[in-house]
Amino acid sequence: MCELLGMNCNVPTDIRFSFSGLIQRGGRTGPHRDGWGIAFYEGRGCRTFHDPEPGCESEIANLVQNHSVKSLNVICHIRKATNGRVCLENTHPFTRELWGRSWAFAHNGRLKGVKDWPLKFYRPIGTTDSEHAFCWMLDQIRKRHPTPPRSDRTLRRLVGELAGRLHARGPFNMMLCDSRQLYCYCSTDLSWLTRRAPFGEASLIDTEMTVDFAKETTPRDIVTVIATRPLTHGEPWQVMDRGSLVVFRDGLPVRI
Amino acid sequence: MCELLGMNCNVPTDIRFSFSGLIQRGGRTGPHRDGWGIAFYEGRGCRTFHDPEPGCESEIANLVQNHSVKSLNVICHIRKATNGRVCLENTHPFTRELWGRSWAFAHNGRLKGVKDWPLKFYRPIGTTDSEHAFCWMLDQIRKRHPTPPRSDRTLRRLVGELAGRLHARGPFNMMLCDSRQLYCYCSTDLSWLTRRAPFGEASLIDTEMTVDFAKETTPRDIVTVIATRPLTHGEPWQVMDRGSLVVFRDGLPVRI
Repeated sequence: MCELLGMNCNVPTDIRFSFSGLIQRGGRTGPHRDGWGIAFYEGRGCRTFHDPEPGCESEIANLVQNHSVKSLNVICHIRKATNGRVCLENTHPFTRELWGRSWAFAHNGRLKGVKDWPLKFYRPIGTTDSEHAFCWMLDQIRKRHPTPPRSDRTLRRLVGELAGRLHARGPFNMMLCDSRQLYCYCSTDLSWLTRRAPFGEASLIDTEMTVDFAKETTPRDIVTVIATRPLTHGEPWQVMDRGSLVVFRDGLPVRI
Repeated sequence: MCELLGMNCNVPTDIRFSFSGLIQRGGRTGPHRDGWGIAFYEGRGCRTFHDPEPGCESEIANLVQNHSVKSLNVICHIRKATNGRVCLENTHPFTRELWGRSWAFAHNGRLKGVKDWPLKFYRPIGTTDSEHAFCWMLDQIRKRHPTPPRSDRTLRRLVGELAGRLHARGPFNMMLCDSRQLYCYCSTDLSWLTRRAPFGEASLIDTEMTVDFAKETTPRDIVTVIATRPLTHGEPWQVMDRGSLVVFRDGLPVRI
């Protein structure tokens, strides 16, 4: 299995604090040594870093920890390979373009028989069931909506329906971003936490690091962090229901 | 205008020496301050780094210079914006998936009216004429070949034909890689150089750096470097003919 980390905000925010916690689980405090990756949205662009090396030893992870990137949406993944060998093309997040938008996807779980599902527009580059599931989701979205639907709610419902079909094939904890909304589906494990004024301090579980968000933010900032398992002590992480989708925009969950 | 750098080899090779020369032109020895990017193929995967910052000041460029990545195919671009503002989504190389392969593209020049050419499968995420041209090329390839053609030569001829149509609209110096072959089209400026045994020394033009390739290679290595302008002193760079395509595979040009 793997672990996921996502962030959705109303102002571009630096994810380094949460990333520093998660990346420890890539071989030090957790067994997810089979690569890691991160996708940052900046405007319409999506910047990705991937490395099939263990996160805790990766030079590129070191750069990400020392280099401030501010983003409204982030998806990050550390991998413990269950399906598909350890190599760059099997390293999440996967990305594709639809409607001139960059979509990114990461998944934790194992899906039975999904690689037999037919694909039309999008094809996997690697050999994971995850990338196949992502291509299938985008195929379905594209088939029903050759151009973007008028309402983002239509899209939220469709993603929920597709995620439900995948969840029926096995654990499907996933994060998907269309550069506007962050879709998080919980099959077995996903928790989230919203930070907003008045901001306080937080301490990571996986490494000795404390941050005082009051010093890093403005009173208007709203930042939601989503992760497989809580990353900090003493903050009110909400555990998501199994078989549920939560979609975030501007730092807050939106109605589906 | 911009500058391009490409590499195609028969064994995975480190591009840092050539990259160190080119990146100087991103604000130090050349005016290409409006971002830079690089795509490295590793197996079927394609790893990209992009930065809208000037190459000569970029922390990510610094990482690329200090981190060995060995690759059979590389495309690199430094940008001087002429069409589309300076931002991540307008930073080359652009990438898309076709037939389950990762395609990367970078361009130098300016194409008149190309943004009016209709697109079907692929849409630009940013606003450059270059990304539009890339989407159009992939659309045309996909339309004629919904599945990969049997012969790679068919593909070379098609790329040559499409590049010729773009060249008719303005300067179209480009590099395109389908993860197997590196297609280089010269509209105005492109030169290339093949290094093979017996290897010797080379010195960069843009910064003080000399390398003895005999120490870095085996006698079987064949490495071709392609660039807008020669990167080294005293090596036999071949200037490409205007309006010509050269396609490289295993480090050598192949018949079109």
